[in-house]
Amino acid sequence: MAAAARLAARGRPLSQPNPAVGCILVREGSVVGRGWTREGGRPHAEAVALDQAGAASRGATAYVTLEPCAHQSERGPACADLLAAAGLARVVVGVEDPDPRTAGAGIARLRSAGIAAALIHSPEAEASLIGYLTRARHGRPHVTLKLATSLDGCIATGKGESQWITGDAARAHVHSRRAMSDAILVGGGTWRKDQPQLDVRLPGLADRSPQRVVLTRGVAPDRAKVINAPAQIARLDAQYLYVEAGTDVAASFIEQDLVDRLELYRAPILIGGGWPALGDIGLASLAEAHGRWQCVERRQLGSDSYEAYSRTR
Amino acid sequence: MAAAARLAARGRPLSQPNPAVGCILVREGSVVGRGWTREGGRPHAEAVALDQAGAASRGATAYVTLEPCAHQSERGPACADLLAAAGLARVVVGVEDPDPRTAGAGIARLRSAGIAAALIHSPEAEASLIGYLTRARHGRPHVTLKLATSLDGCIATGKGESQWITGDAARAHVHSRRAMSDAILVGGGTWRKDQPQLDVRLPGLADRSPQRVVLTRGVAPDRAKVINAPAQIARLDAQYLYVEAGTDVAASFIEQDLVDRLELYRAPILIGGGWPALGDIGLASLAEAHGRWQCVERRQLGSDSYEAYSRTR
Repeated sequence: MAAAARLAARGRPLSQPNPAVGCILVREGSVVGRGWTREGGRPHAEAVALDQAGAASRGATAYVTLEPCAHQSERGPACADLLAAAGLARVVVGVEDPDPRTAGAGIARLRSAGIAAALIHSPEAEASLIGYLTRARHGRPHVTLKLATSLDGCIATGKGESQWITGDAARAHVHSRRAMSDAILVGGGTWRKDQPQLDVRLPGLADRSPQRVVLTRGVAPDRAKVINAPAQIARLDAQYLYVEAGTDVAASFIEQDLVDRLELYRAPILIGGGWPALGDIGLASLAEAHGRWQCVERRQLGSDSYEAYSRTR
Repeated sequence: MAAAARLAARGRPLSQPNPAVGCILVREGSVVGRGWTREGGRPHAEAVALDQAGAASRGATAYVTLEPCAHQSERGPACADLLAAAGLARVVVGVEDPDPRTAGAGIARLRSAGIAAALIHSPEAEASLIGYLTRARHGRPHVTLKLATSLDGCIATGKGESQWITGDAARAHVHSRRAMSDAILVGGGTWRKDQPQLDVRLPGLADRSPQRVVLTRGVAPDRAKVINAPAQIARLDAQYLYVEAGTDVAASFIEQDLVDRLELYRAPILIGGGWPALGDIGLASLAEAHGRWQCVERRQLGSDSYEAYSRTR
């Protein structure tokens, strides 16, 4: 299932508006088919894997990160029906589909076709579907807040100089994270001050540049979608929103508890008296601050360090 | 030599006013004597090791972290003479003694007594002597600045609440670092606000509590020595000064380039709009901030992270 989740990651974020699913077919100990959701959401991972396996799918076991869909659409047949027709012996599902048109009906359909179908919850599968699941659970995209700071937590000097705090490796990593997102958000202040391109400047990934979103109450800029308040991210056609914000926009997202993942790049420098990473978030006491974030990833990027924290919910 | 440096660490900080030295005697592949500088500086490491080895020191090799002293004092004979009298075959020295009374004369004295003496510079030996060497090079103690912050670099909430940001394991680690210091400094504001004990609350180490120093232009408090400006640390009888300061005192030490080691404890929390770790340090541009600090240690302490940075000079 972990391997299927890694396959699924290839579909992120291009599978939008569909979830990025991964599927592996195994028969007699050998992989006979592999698939992941393609650009625009079709074909589905299961269809790709079955197509690859051909006759070898008969009697095989399918490992699918998300419950196969039970609903037909004008874009193709239901995956549960496809899997049943292929004569599989067994289907293992990593995460139940929260879509009310499936939500258990996919597994039920398989079972009624005589296939042993089991839901075995997989953290890897869940992580690979987190954008889709966050939309289903909270009605908004999964939000990553990126901060690039000095050791003393500044995002710019007192005069506002911020280019550059981190080095080349960290900045390339930021571009790779942009490429994993459907949309990227900055505040109006940053948009006007830095005129950021917000694109993906990595070889071969320029076409992965996400939709640009500006949070502002001011004049709508060209080349970007505008929202007036953080809560309006619900309206974006996006599963993965990447927020590259200054002090106040970052604080407004944290204050409204709209951040699921915090990505922190830190350079081994001291600024002193600079712009803080985070403005007032309305914290009443220190006790309230504890127990909300867990470190899930840590690595060195040149002389900078990278850490990712997940919001514990 | 690395083993001798680890022995030397046992003398820190109690060897004050003498350097904490380590000495190992090896004969025919076996360790026959081990010594480190005792409390108050006497006996010296070499004397302890020779005493332990007895007749076995004849023909042995001595590994000493610091050049053996060439000057007699009323407190005992010169170590160079002691080593010569013991009939050693060879003496390997990790760091030349910057004390003008020795400064090469220790090695010369050994050679003239027919002993093969060699200076083979050892980074481990240098690190174990850094307090003594900093006094010799800069005329002041080695300074460690400790900061305990949230992920966004705050040392307290906007209302000044700072107990506690970090957890038990990090606080115990702070106490072990205090025990490695001769003196501990806070600002007058912290002294008045928190009434800190600044002692070592670890089993068996309570008597290692360092001298308390308060940086203030205000009224001299009881129970502590007072200095009026950071530069006055030169006057302290200390090789290792540990600074546990608030925003402004930390900034004044950094601005005057008086910090040799930065120890950063970070809790996985966000405060937002809190007290910054560091006030204005007079930074003219970002370029000036780079290349001054290098990460030399990193570890996890419960849910908090600990990092040490060394000032590159």
